[in-house]
Amino acid sequence: MSAAQPLFTTIITIGDELLYGQVIDTNSAWMARLLNQSGILVKRRVAVADRWDDIWQALTEAPQQGQLVLITGGLGPTADDITKPLLCNYFGGKMVVHQPTLDHVKNIFENILKRPMIERNAKQAEVPDVCTVLMNQKGTAPGMWFEKDGVVYVSLPGVPMEMQWLMENEVMPRLLTHFKTGHVVHKTLITAGVGESFLAEKIKDFEASLPSDVKLAYLPNHGMVRLRLSAWGMDKAALENQLETLFQGLQVAVGEYLVAKADLPMEKIVGQLLLERNQTLATAESCTGGFMAHLLSKHPGSSAFFIGSVVSYSNRIKESELGVSHQDAITVGVVSEPVVRQMAEGIRQKFSTDYAIAVSGIMGPGGATPEKPVGTVWMAVSGPAGTQAQCIHLRFDRAKNIEWTALQAMNYLRQYIVEKS
Amino acid sequence: MSAAQPLFTTIITIGDELLYGQVIDTNSAWMARLLNQSGILVKRRVAVADRWDDIWQALTEAPQQGQLVLITGGLGPTADDITKPLLCNYFGGKMVVHQPTLDHVKNIFENILKRPMIERNAKQAEVPDVCTVLMNQKGTAPGMWFEKDGVVYVSLPGVPMEMQWLMENEVMPRLLTHFKTGHVVHKTLITAGVGESFLAEKIKDFEASLPSDVKLAYLPNHGMVRLRLSAWGMDKAALENQLETLFQGLQVAVGEYLVAKADLPMEKIVGQLLLERNQTLATAESCTGGFMAHLLSKHPGSSAFFIGSVVSYSNRIKESELGVSHQDAITVGVVSEPVVRQMAEGIRQKFSTDYAIAVSGIMGPGGATPEKPVGTVWMAVSGPAGTQAQCIHLRFDRAKNIEWTALQAMNYLRQYIVEKS
Repeated sequence: MSAAQPLFTTIITIGDELLYGQVIDTNSAWMARLLNQSGILVKRRVAVADRWDDIWQALTEAPQQGQLVLITGGLGPTADDITKPLLCNYFGGKMVVHQPTLDHVKNIFENILKRPMIERNAKQAEVPDVCTVLMNQKGTAPGMWFEKDGVVYVSLPGVPMEMQWLMENEVMPRLLTHFKTGHVVHKTLITAGVGESFLAEKIKDFEASLPSDVKLAYLPNHGMVRLRLSAWGMDKAALENQLETLFQGLQVAVGEYLVAKADLPMEKIVGQLLLERNQTLATAESCTGGFMAHLLSKHPGSSAFFIGSVVSYSNRIKESELGVSHQDAITVGVVSEPVVRQMAEGIRQKFSTDYAIAVSGIMGPGGATPEKPVGTVWMAVSGPAGTQAQCIHLRFDRAKNIEWTALQAMNYLRQYIVEKS
Repeated sequence: MSAAQPLFTTIITIGDELLYGQVIDTNSAWMARLLNQSGILVKRRVAVADRWDDIWQALTEAPQQGQLVLITGGLGPTADDITKPLLCNYFGGKMVVHQPTLDHVKNIFENILKRPMIERNAKQAEVPDVCTVLMNQKGTAPGMWFEKDGVVYVSLPGVPMEMQWLMENEVMPRLLTHFKTGHVVHKTLITAGVGESFLAEKIKDFEASLPSDVKLAYLPNHGMVRLRLSAWGMDKAALENQLETLFQGLQVAVGEYLVAKADLPMEKIVGQLLLERNQTLATAESCTGGFMAHLLSKHPGSSAFFIGSVVSYSNRIKESELGVSHQDAITVGVVSEPVVRQMAEGIRQKFSTDYAIAVSGIMGPGGATPEKPVGTVWMAVSGPAGTQAQCIHLRFDRAKNIEWTALQAMNYLRQYIVEKS
C-alpha cells in the first residue's frame, strides 16, 4: 500500500439541542459513511452549542486534524442561528446577496410553499463574499465552501435531507477534484452464539498475523458480534485483494460461529434467504408491537417476501385473529410455549405464507409475575418443516428488550431456514 | 438568578465505529439529558477513534471547557480497546488487580454466563492505582474516577446499558456531592401548521422581550416546530417561576398553532387523549409497515388504549383482512381515498375500537406512477364522528417518508379527537 496519507476530516456539528441531548446526531454518522466510500477518514467529531466562542474555538482547532473541515447546523432563519455571520467574520468577508439563491428562495415560496416570502427568508440568500456558494436544491439555506491556508471548510445546513443532498451533489464531486483521497475498504462478517472475549481468544492467531495497517474491530450488539477489517490505501484493487485474502482467513478463523459474510442487518439476511427461495413471511407480534414488521418493511423490495403482520397487542386479538386457545391464555398465560406456537401457526395459515414468526413476552417495566420476570420472551417459528419454539431471557430496558426480541426471533427463523430447507 | 457559573462538561466518546459512521452515538445524548436534570451543562462533545494520540489530545484539551470530563468506550477485553492503559499512563499510575471487580467478574462467568473465565476476562479487573473504581453491576468493565488539577475525569464502558447504570448509580451521586451544580430548566411546546420563519415572525416581540439568560430555540421536525425556553440558575424555585411566566407568554404568542404544552412525542399526546377519554385505537398499515404500531406500543402502559394492528403489506391482505373492495383496489388503486377509508373502517370494526387510523402510500424509491409520484400518501381516521381522509405529498427518502407518514397520521387523529369529541 502507498506511503501517502489519507485525507483526514473534522466534522463540527452545531446546535444547542445536541448538547442538551434533545436530538441524536445522525448527520455525522451519515457523512462519515459517505466520506469513507471515497477514502476520506473522519479523525474527529465535535459538537458545540450555538455559542460564538465555542464554534470559533472548534474552527481554530480543526486544521490540526487534517485538511478538511465539515460543518453542519446553525444556518436557519431564526435568531439562534449564528453560524453564517460567524463564518463571514472568521474568514474575513462581508455579507452580500447571492442572486441565484435569492431567485431560488423566491421560487420556493411562490411555487412550492405558495406563501408570501418575508424579509427573514430573503436573508437566507445572503452569503459571505469569500465563499463559493453551493446551491441547495432541497431548501433555502445554501452550502458554503471556504479555503484558508490549504484547508477546505464546508458549511452545510443541519436538516438531514438538505445536508445529504448537498454532500452527494455538490461537496463530494468538488472534494474528489480538489484532493487525492485514496480508498478505504471495510470487510465485515457477523457471528452469533459466542461472546466477544471467547471469539477474541479463538481468533487470536489470526489477529496477531494481521499487517499493522489493517485494523480488526469487534462490534458486539443484540447477542451477536460483528468483526470488521479496515484499511486505507491509494491503490483500490490492491487493497481489495489484500483485504479479501485476509477476510477469507477470518472466515476460517471464526468457524462455526459465522452467520453472514457482509455487514447486513438481520432482517436483510432473512429477506435474502426468502428471496432466493421465492418464499414468504408473516409475523404475529405481541410484545414487539409491530417492530419486526417495521424492520422487514423498511427496506425497498421487501414486499416480494413480506406479506404482513397481525399486531395482537391486546390479548383478545390473539384469540379472535390468531386462533389462540382461550383456555391456554387463561391457564398457562399468553407468554407461553402453546400460545406462541398457536400465534405462529395462526398467522401462517391466515396469511398463507411459507413461514411465520410469533413473539410474546414481558418487555417491562410492568407486567412481571414471580414465574415470569421482565425479559421473559417466548418465540415460535412455523414453516414447511413444522413449528418450533424457544424461551429467552433478556435483562435490558423496554426499548432494548423490544429490539433484542425482534432480532433474536429473526435469527431463530434464519437458523430454521438454513438448517431445515 | 445567581451570578455563579454552571458546571460545564466535555463528553469524549471513543471508538473507531463512531468515526466510520457504522454506529450512531446515542450515549452522548442520553448522558446530556441526565446531566441537565442536575443542572450540569455539556459544553462540547468529542468523538475520537481508538488511537492513542487522538484520545490523549482530547483529554488534554477537555479541561479548557470545564471541570468535568466524561469518557465512554474503549474498555472492552479485545486488543482494539486501549482506553484503560492510556488513562493509567495519562494520570501517572500503574495497573493493579481490583479484587472486588475480580470477584464480580468471576461470579458473572460462574453463575450467570456459566462459562469458564479466561485470562482476558480477568484482565477486566485490572485498574490504574490512581483511580476510584466504580463497580459495574451490569458488566465486567468497571468505571473509573480520576481527579487532576481540580478537574474530575470519569471513564465508563461504551455499552449503553452499562454506561447508564453506572451514570445513575455511581457517577451522579458522587458528582452532586463533589460539585455545586445548580439547575437547568427547559420548557418546551409543540406547534403545527406553521413554518419556522413565519413562527419566528409571529413571536418576534416575545423573543425580543426575553431576558438575556433565557434562550429560545426552534426545533423543526416532521412538519411541526418545537419551541424550547432554557435557563440555568442556582435557585430552582425562582428559575421555575421565571420560566413558567415566560412559557405562558410564549403560549399566548404562538396562538392557534399550539399543539402541546410539553415536549412529548406525538404518539404520547394521542395516547393521553385516549386515556383521558378511556377510548381505544387500532391501526391498519400499508406503507408504514407496522411503524405506527411500534411507536404506539413502545411506551409502557400503551396496552390501556392500543389494541393492535393489521399490517397489510401485501394487497391481498387488505382485501381478506380489512374488507377492501377488490374492485376499488384494481380500478382506483390501493393508494386512494376509498381504499384508506375502507381500511380504517375495516380495522375499527374488526378490532372493536373507538378509533382507527389507516395509511396507504408510496414510500419509494420504487412504486411510483405518473399520477402518484413517490411521497403520495392517503390516510384516513375513523371514529365515533365518522370517517375522514386526506392526501399528503412527502418529498423525502423512504425512511423519512415512513416516519413523516406515521406522525402526520397520528396528528390527523389528534385533530379529529380534539375537534370532534
